[in-house]
This record gives sequence, structure tokens and C-alpha cells, in this order.
Amino acid sequence: MTVSDSEKKCKIAVDAMGGDFAPKNVVIGTVNALSTLEDAELFLIGDKEKILSILKESNLSFNNENIIHTPEVIEMGESPTSALKSKPNSSLVIGAKMVRDKQAHAFVSAGNTGAMMAASTLITGRIEGVGRPTIGAQLPNIFGHCSLYDVGAGKDAKAIHLLEYAIMGSIYAKEIDGISNPKVGLLSMGEEEGKGNDVANEAYDLLKNSNLNFIGNVEGRDLLTKEIDVVVCDGFVGNILLKFGESVPKLLKHLLQQTAKKNVLDAIKIMLVKSTMKKALKSLDYQEHGGVPLLGINGISIIGHGSSTPKAITNMILKAKKMFDNNLVEKIQRSISDYKKKDIK
Amino acid sequence: MTVSDSEKKCKIAVDAMGGDFAPKNVVIGTVNALSTLEDAELFLIGDKEKILSILKESNLSFNNENIIHTPEVIEMGESPTSALKSKPNSSLVIGAKMVRDKQAHAFVSAGNTGAMMAASTLITGRIEGVGRPTIGAQLPNIFGHCSLYDVGAGKDAKAIHLLEYAIMGSIYAKEIDGISNPKVGLLSMGEEEGKGNDVANEAYDLLKNSNLNFIGNVEGRDLLTKEIDVVVCDGFVGNILLKFGESVPKLLKHLLQQTAKKNVLDAIKIMLVKSTMKKALKSLDYQEHGGVPLLGINGISIIGHGSSTPKAITNMILKAKKMFDNNLVEKIQRSISDYKKKDIK
Repeated sequence: MTVSDSEKKCKIAVDAMGGDFAPKNVVIGTVNALSTLEDAELFLIGDKEKILSILKESNLSFNNENIIHTPEVIEMGESPTSALKSKPNSSLVIGAKMVRDKQAHAFVSAGNTGAMMAASTLITGRIEGVGRPTIGAQLPNIFGHCSLYDVGAGKDAKAIHLLEYAIMGSIYAKEIDGISNPKVGLLSMGEEEGKGNDVANEAYDLLKNSNLNFIGNVEGRDLLTKEIDVVVCDGFVGNILLKFGESVPKLLKHLLQQTAKKNVLDAIKIMLVKSTMKKALKSLDYQEHGGVPLLGINGISIIGHGSSTPKAITNMILKAKKMFDNNLVEKIQRSISDYKKKDIK
Repeated sequence: MTVSDSEKKCKIAVDAMGGDFAPKNVVIGTVNALSTLEDAELFLIGDKEKILSILKESNLSFNNENIIHTPEVIEMGESPTSALKSKPNSSLVIGAKMVRDKQAHAFVSAGNTGAMMAASTLITGRIEGVGRPTIGAQLPNIFGHCSLYDVGAGKDAKAIHLLEYAIMGSIYAKEIDGISNPKVGLLSMGEEEGKGNDVANEAYDLLKNSNLNFIGNVEGRDLLTKEIDVVVCDGFVGNILLKFGESVPKLLKHLLQQTAKKNVLDAIKIMLVKSTMKKALKSLDYQEHGGVPLLGINGISIIGHGSSTPKAITNMILKAKKMFDNNLVEKIQRSISDYKKKDIK
């Protein structure tokens, strides 16, 4: 079951126990993904009995040998590092080990985010030269979308980490999103140089002197309204922004409901426009995107939202496959290594 | 022209030269404010000739003695501290001095934000014990609104500054927004204690041990969806979040337009709902709120958006008056002093 370089078939391990609606949503999403994928082998890691029972009740089939039984489950609320230690036979640990041991190219989980990050970083391991792995998230934007790194792999960042995020994010934008020369921005309080905090100002210099397509500082408003592909910030800022953005539709719904309450005509109009609004706001729905990649890991690692639907799980698997097809991990390895060499000179 | 404690009439200095549409919008907004205010004296600080010409062309009247001529103007793009030094006779410097010298209780400006902050902090001066003044902004929220401190007075913050923001923000929420026991949250990456960066985790302890109504960490999504009155974070995070939030309507408009392009029926529905949407999104319009207060200053300081309309200027003046009526500055002085005394024991 070892993955050799010559073997082109992509092997993706899926955490069947990850997410609020696991294993059901994961099993359905995985089977659906398999039906659309060529040259890929999928593994379901988790409680075999439960997985089989879902397959049966949903009238789905999945290769029995590709169901890897794991007796332990890391729950959503558990402390990541202690859970990894106390539950060595959990689906999260086994999945991360499969990538480490080259039994799989990718691991996908909608489980405990902190534990998935810890498993990927500590078990699968970082790419040499990467100080800190990073999670990117796509935000819709009037020019398409922009990817924000980091949205929570770290709690803070040194300037060099922000540069690493920019390098890795640019490769992802190029290889996966097909953007030929991704525009990179540094999240800050003003457009001019020197408008940031100390870390941002130091990162500005590193980015300016890199070979990235650095367009300078970008402000909060630019994320949604400027033509920009990759924006870097520390995980604290990025995580808060991402969650803030995700909650906007809920506020909108509330504001429309309040308006409807005040006036019958408005209420009718809002009722009429409901399905149209839903279409318009589709790009704000994270389920459409599937999970977010954890870049900087020595293998493909995709982290999903706890409330992932089967569709989100399918999209996460398709994303992992695309990363494999485009040799993303190898390209990141090469770029980071090139940068470090240049830096040492 | 000195303000004595016994004199109850509120004196508000307005920077006539501040903002992209100054002095016109400021002059109109100030005259409009005057017509609704009792017990208040307003001053227009700026180029007297220009002010008089706008009054004439708009067919408005304003007490000639209350127009304070200043020959210099700090432009929107100028570096704050050097502008303050090189233009001692600018409206921004003179306005801040009027508050320092007790010739006015409040100073209101929609001009260069950095220069207004610097003028208020360096010329008018901080309240004793306040390490760093803070700007708060109101975000709409499904329970009404929540106020975020700091949104850009500082670029970073120590834990003690976050506590000061919480103390000052709570007083503002109580006195100006009429919330009896304001719920205070600390912006972080997760709800549980210890989920933040180092500064946030340290601030958690300070807030927990304060006599504020501290409800713990809040996440990005909670700003719009949780019943919470005051949320504290450093100015870097707050500024980025605020500007991000302000740009949401622009993205929505774009998404609706894109949907309309694809389908005629959707286009008609969107056209029909336009005015209703505008009503619903009214709370997202900063012009409705007027400017944001800079708390921690030894006097009332209100900072407006560069693109302030006359209505926004009026609202800024009304806000300054409300802060005066509720003795906000004195109450902040007392609370900070009480906290420092307690802290020393």
C-alpha cells in the first residue's frame, strides 16, 4: 500500500468520523466523490461498523478493503494535543500517519480543526524550511475571489511567516485557481508603506524584496473590492475576519426580516426575491468551496467545517485531487527551498 | 470665552475644513445641527471667507463671531505629526487647542483621521491614567448593535490597553446608548479561555478580574450575531474588521448585479426589491451614525469619515452634545482613576 513516485494514482484518506454529521455526511460525500473521480483511490477511516451501516441504509457501495477501522474518535471539543496523545488509534491520527508513511497522498477531515492541524503538523510533518503551516480561505470579491492566509493555523506570526504564507498562497493561486501571476497584498491599516503594526511593516520589506507579485498593503475593504488574489495576515486577524464574513448572511437575513415586519409591501418584495438572494449569496456559502487547505505540510491536508454537508465533503476530496494532480506539495517544497537558499547567500 | 464648570452651555468647535466635501458639507451640517440643539454654542473653525461664501450661496445664517478664521489646512493625505508641527494655524490644531484651553467642550472633525487623533492626543491631551485613547465604532448586530474598540487609534495594544478600552466603552454604552449593564467581550479565535494570542490571553485575566460585565471571548461571527454591547481588540484588528464590514454592501450590490445579468426574472425581482434593500441596509451606512468618538481624551473628540455628508456632520455634533450632557469625560476620568487606585493597592 505504499505510494511510489511512479505510481500516479492519487490516494486520499478521508476521516469518516470528522464533523458534526459524521460519519453519515462523510460517507455519502466520499462515495459521491468517488463516482466523479478517475485515477483516485479513496479510504474511509473510522468506525467500520458504523460506516458499513450507513452504506447499507443509504444503499451505497464502497470497497470494503478501503475502509480502515479505527476504534477511537477525537471529539469536536477536545484539546488537540492531548487528544492526539490519548487517542493514538483515532481516525485523525491514523489518517495523518497514512500521509506521513506515504500510504496516502492526502488526508481530508471535517473534524476537530485544532486536532487536524496538530495531526498534520506534528504527525505528517512540515515541509523543510516552512516555519509555520497556514490555512487559506477564499473570500468572494467583486473581481472573483481573493484568498486570505492565515485564517487560524497560527495565533500570531513573525514577518518571515507572512512571507512564507505569501509564497505558498501564490503557488496555490497559480496551480489550483489558474491565476498566472497572482497579485499578493499585505493586510494592513492603510495603503501606504509603514501603515501597519511592527510585524506588518517588517513583512512589507520582505515581500517587496521577494520575487512575488507584491502590490503593497491592502485594507479591510480591499478584500472584497480590489483586484487581488492572495492576502496575508496573522492567523488571529484572519480567523476573526473569516468568521465575521461567514456571519454576514445571517445579519442580512435579520435586517430583511426586520424591514419586512414594518411594511407589508416590503414583506412581499422580500418574499419574492428570496430565491434570487439565495443565488446571489451562493459564493458566501463555505459549503460550496469545500474545506480549506493547510499548506506547508509534507502532504495534502484539507480541513473542513464541522457542519460540512455531503457536498462539502465531496468538494474537499475533489480539491485534494486537484492539489495532487498539480504537484502542489512538491512545488511548495521547491519554492521554499529556493527562497531559503537565496536568503542564505 | 472660557468654559467654567458652572456654565452649562455646551460649546462645540467644528472643523470646517475637514473632509472631502469641506467646507460645504460641514457648514450645512453645522447650521442644521444648530437648529435642533438647545443650550449649545457651535463654532466653525476654518477659512472664514469660504465659510461665509457657502453660507451666502446656501442661504444660511450663522453667528459671525462664532466663525474662527484659520489660514492653514491640513490635507487628507498629510503625515499627521509633521502636519501638526508645520501648520500650527490649521483648523485641526486650533480646534484641539480650544478644547485644551476650555474654550470648547468638544471638537468635531471629518478631516485627516490620523491628524485629528494626534491633535486630540497631543494637544488636547489624554485623561490621566489612560495609556492609549481609543476609537469605537458601532456594528449592526441581530440584537441591535455592538460597539467595537479599538478601530484604529492604536496599531497594537497591550493587555492593559484592552482593559482601558473596555472600561471606556462600557461607560459610553451605558451613558450614551442607555444600556444598563453593558456586556463586554474580548475578540479572540475561540470562545474558551486561552484561545487568543498572548495579548488577548493576558487581557482575558484583567477583564475577568475587573468589575465589568465581562462575558468572555467572542469570535468574529459573534460581532453580528451575539447579544453583546462592547467588544475590545487592538486597533490593527479593529480597523481591518471595520473597513471590511463597510465594504460588504458593495459586494452585495455586485453579487446581485451578477445574478441579474444571468436571468431576466431575477433582474426584475432585484429591481423591485432595490428600495427595500436600501431600507434594510440602512444600519450599515456609517453616515447614519455620524462619526466615531475618540475616548480617553480630556475633552470630547469626534472623528468623522472623510466623505461625511451634511447629515453625518449634524449627527457628529449631536453625538458630541449627548456626550457633554451625560458628563462622559468626567465619568471616564473617575472610572479610570478608581481602577488605577484599586490596581495600586
